[in-house]
Amino acid sequence: MAKRRTGDELVFLPLGGVGEIGMNLSLYGFGPDGNRQWIIVDFGITFANEFDEPGVDLIFPDLRFAEAERKSILGIIITHAHEDHFGALLDLWPRIKAPVYMTPFAAGLLAAKAEGHAGAPDIPVKSYKAGDRWRLGPFDIEAINVAHSIPESNALAIRTGLGTVLHTGDWKIDATPVLGHPTDFERIGAIAAETGIRALVGDSTNAVREGISPSEREVAASLTEIIGQAPGRVAVTTFASNVGRIRAVAEAAAATGRDVVVLGRAMHRSLDVARELGLLDGIKPFLGEDAYGYLPRDKVVALMTGSQGEPRAALAKVATGEHRNITLAPGDTLIFSSRTIPGNEKSVNAIQNALAGKGVRILTDRDALVHVSGHPRRGELARMYEYARPEVAVPVHGEAVHLNAHADLARHVGVPEVVVGGNGKMIRLAPGPAGIVDEAFAGRLFKDGRLVVLPDASGVKERRKASFAGVVVVSLALDGKGGIAADPEAVLIGIPDEDQRGEDFEDVVIDAAESTLEGLSRPRRRDLDTVAEAIKKAVRAAVAERWGKKPIVEVVVHEVD
Amino acid sequence: MAKRRTGDELVFLPLGGVGEIGMNLSLYGFGPDGNRQWIIVDFGITFANEFDEPGVDLIFPDLRFAEAERKSILGIIITHAHEDHFGALLDLWPRIKAPVYMTPFAAGLLAAKAEGHAGAPDIPVKSYKAGDRWRLGPFDIEAINVAHSIPESNALAIRTGLGTVLHTGDWKIDATPVLGHPTDFERIGAIAAETGIRALVGDSTNAVREGISPSEREVAASLTEIIGQAPGRVAVTTFASNVGRIRAVAEAAAATGRDVVVLGRAMHRSLDVARELGLLDGIKPFLGEDAYGYLPRDKVVALMTGSQGEPRAALAKVATGEHRNITLAPGDTLIFSSRTIPGNEKSVNAIQNALAGKGVRILTDRDALVHVSGHPRRGELARMYEYARPEVAVPVHGEAVHLNAHADLARHVGVPEVVVGGNGKMIRLAPGPAGIVDEAFAGRLFKDGRLVVLPDASGVKERRKASFAGVVVVSLALDGKGGIAADPEAVLIGIPDEDQRGEDFEDVVIDAAESTLEGLSRPRRRDLDTVAEAIKKAVRAAVAERWGKKPIVEVVVHEVD
Repeated sequence: MAKRRTGDELVFLPLGGVGEIGMNLSLYGFGPDGNRQWIIVDFGITFANEFDEPGVDLIFPDLRFAEAERKSILGIIITHAHEDHFGALLDLWPRIKAPVYMTPFAAGLLAAKAEGHAGAPDIPVKSYKAGDRWRLGPFDIEAINVAHSIPESNALAIRTGLGTVLHTGDWKIDATPVLGHPTDFERIGAIAAETGIRALVGDSTNAVREGISPSEREVAASLTEIIGQAPGRVAVTTFASNVGRIRAVAEAAAATGRDVVVLGRAMHRSLDVARELGLLDGIKPFLGEDAYGYLPRDKVVALMTGSQGEPRAALAKVATGEHRNITLAPGDTLIFSSRTIPGNEKSVNAIQNALAGKGVRILTDRDALVHVSGHPRRGELARMYEYARPEVAVPVHGEAVHLNAHADLARHVGVPEVVVGGNGKMIRLAPGPAGIVDEAFAGRLFKDGRLVVLPDASGVKERRKASFAGVVVVSLALDGKGGIAADPEAVLIGIPDEDQRGEDFEDVVIDAAESTLEGLSRPRRRDLDTVAEAIKKAVRAAVAERWGKKPIVEVVVHEVD
Repeated sequence: MAKRRTGDELVFLPLGGVGEIGMNLSLYGFGPDGNRQWIIVDFGITFANEFDEPGVDLIFPDLRFAEAERKSILGIIITHAHEDHFGALLDLWPRIKAPVYMTPFAAGLLAAKAEGHAGAPDIPVKSYKAGDRWRLGPFDIEAINVAHSIPESNALAIRTGLGTVLHTGDWKIDATPVLGHPTDFERIGAIAAETGIRALVGDSTNAVREGISPSEREVAASLTEIIGQAPGRVAVTTFASNVGRIRAVAEAAAATGRDVVVLGRAMHRSLDVARELGLLDGIKPFLGEDAYGYLPRDKVVALMTGSQGEPRAALAKVATGEHRNITLAPGDTLIFSSRTIPGNEKSVNAIQNALAGKGVRILTDRDALVHVSGHPRRGELARMYEYARPEVAVPVHGEAVHLNAHADLARHVGVPEVVVGGNGKMIRLAPGPAGIVDEAFAGRLFKDGRLVVLPDASGVKERRKASFAGVVVVSLALDGKGGIAADPEAVLIGIPDEDQRGEDFEDVVIDAAESTLEGLSRPRRRDLDTVAEAIKKAVRAAVAERWGKKPIVEVVVHEVD
């Protein structure tokens, strides 16, 4: 255990994931203010919203605080391999360059992702498994097995000279998982008994839901029943990393005499890693998609990516009839063994309707127990608090409604101190009363095409504006004396063709530009900025009058000899 | 009853609302092919999706079929005043110009909407109420009361020489509505006994849901309990036209000693009409929003628009703290007495989180019975079929999954013929077996700003492209001999500021344009199209190489003397 010196503090600083779902990245610091050593727990992304951030692929936390402290960062610990916990490594690890601790499954997925990632860094991975305990400066870290919706998920017990933190990561109880073991409350209880738990920093995702989540084993039983009764082909779409769920589907297929055909790159990637690590032991090998056409209709289960309606995933191609090998027809069943992530409803609906329109039976978690969340409901949170008995509760991994619900619950079960923070809020966990003591910069970075850019330098705001009201660019040339050397020409992007009376909008723009130009005296025309500004105003007004909307208007005035 | 001549047919032709939720507009035709008389039932819109149709306000059915038949259209009958049933009148009625039949509440809302609508047409409205029966050429129409989530909703019994159609409109059973009466099954049974019902054309929205919807009276009881127990202020957001729900809120407020403050233009518009028609009789007058600040916190209920997260509605302003008169604080309660329409989840979430972050308690239909749908679940549909006993069922008002579920149910309860059609599919209902006999053009029109435009002429596709990858416009001037009269200049919209190495993208564009120009011989430069094309290619490639994305690139080459 690190010694405690005067001025030492134990602080928690999330740079993402608090006040939002996604982009989990937190720091723990130990030492006096201005001279702390740090570890980073998780290194996640969030997915961009097509409306708010059009054209953006991924969103990362802005790491400038961690970059400035880079020399004092002892390690990055990944609790599990979901994208919102480890997805930023390939792009942003080079800004930190600390060793990364992760389990074999996470390391396998990272290596597989790196293959398809141009310029992927060579990240020094240190492997750990649940039960391992290791030292990083003042931090003594122990990985504790938790049940979740991906293999090898861990909570972390972080012992320091100022007390022990239990960082739960994502978890649920699940007394009977299909793969792995239930959350190790026994070990959590033992640590609580041994050192006491100063603070629990924990998952709030389902803190608004009462009760205890169903087990993965119950989902497996339900899937077996559904697949057993299905008259035709069965397609199942789920998250590629949910190997437990995929095992459940494979076991259901085997029990009902069906072969499993696998579709989708992410699915193959995840299953290759899983098989390599023995996570699919006892499961009959999956078949390639070319087998699909040869198998009798009641002898096949097609397992595919695309549960979120992603347009390039296997399911979307099947839905539009563009998939080379796979079709679904009347009498077939498609099971969404997944939850629709908010924002994806329209795309998922479109796929469901396209296939329903072809007579395919669609089953979702509204119709049957074909999916269960990997996060704890209130009954599970209460159990966690019974075992951990922390002095401080810090709800994380949730939007404000989730954090507040978690905080209420923690107070209700008798946790003496509850601190709801936010991204960039530095919480002192010890010594003294827990509370927000400082603020660090917390923002976001966009991955747009190949670039990682600051939102303000990304052009996204202009793109949103252009998507609403289009773009008009007018150019012309004047000579040095204000004479017109080349008449105005216009480029219109995203403007309706014609106004209400059938006049072409390009003519409207050119007319406005020309009459403005004519209205300016020759001497005034010598000031190119004045000309540009006058035309810009006139064009915008002319379009707005006919359309009711103001496009982005830019004017270029060339000067020629 | 119109006589039946040889060659006469009774046909049903939806131009919207079948295969989608929204934009309900259907025609019934009677007569021989090529010489039919028509009525239109409902005249609705759908709301644009911010991602698929950025900048578009509303979407209408493309009426070209009806416009061509205009002289044979005897009337437009509005079943109820929801936007997806009557919202296209102000914009598209002038293309048809038939008399419009609607109830006083619908007429009142239309008149109120017309006040804020530039160039609103003067629509000849003929008022009807449930129980009325009138004649339009070969159609003998009777309005039958149904319960729904807006006052004065009606099903239509359409008697013809070839049999009677029951067009259900939107409905639910609701044995104990807060306002109005339950769906009039007795009358439907009587018509079935009298003439038989040839075809039922009916609401499929909730055909995937088992059971029978709770009654509005149960929602009212639940609201009363919640408001009675709330310690601070209570805000309720709901659909402005749901006068029954608003009565329930007002009654709950009265029962718990609170005054009601009303916010939002749409809410005022609807309540003015409702009060005028006596639909709020017995309800204490509502207060203006200036009263909010003076009332004790446990003596007020604020009723407001914005349940869908609309950024300009009252609730959004309250959430961001921008509302002049209304604030919500810790201890206050906000009730979403509404359903989030798919596509609006993100905006609604943002509002809920903003207020939860301020300590406001949020209640939605996931937490308590604070909302119920106005559409029939399977148990209700089965009851309808018991009374109507139609020979043909035509599911409408739903996406494919809903239509299919409705069709399955109709078959299951023994309807002999079930026809699932789609927008533009003309279904012959009689004589002979029902089925699709013809296809009419069915498409969509966009209301974009002030204009009503065809999708292809709207610029929306380009705007979507621009929102993804931005716009670059390059202009320059050449003299007649291929000499450079003005160097290239560039306008970049929505492009990141810099590439990975910190080079300005504007420089990247200009460099690409200049080096392309230099690489072209003077004679080749005399062909302006060649110059433009070469620069366009080079600029696109240069940006794509650094960014990984290809913007829209346009090049203007001026020619000067």
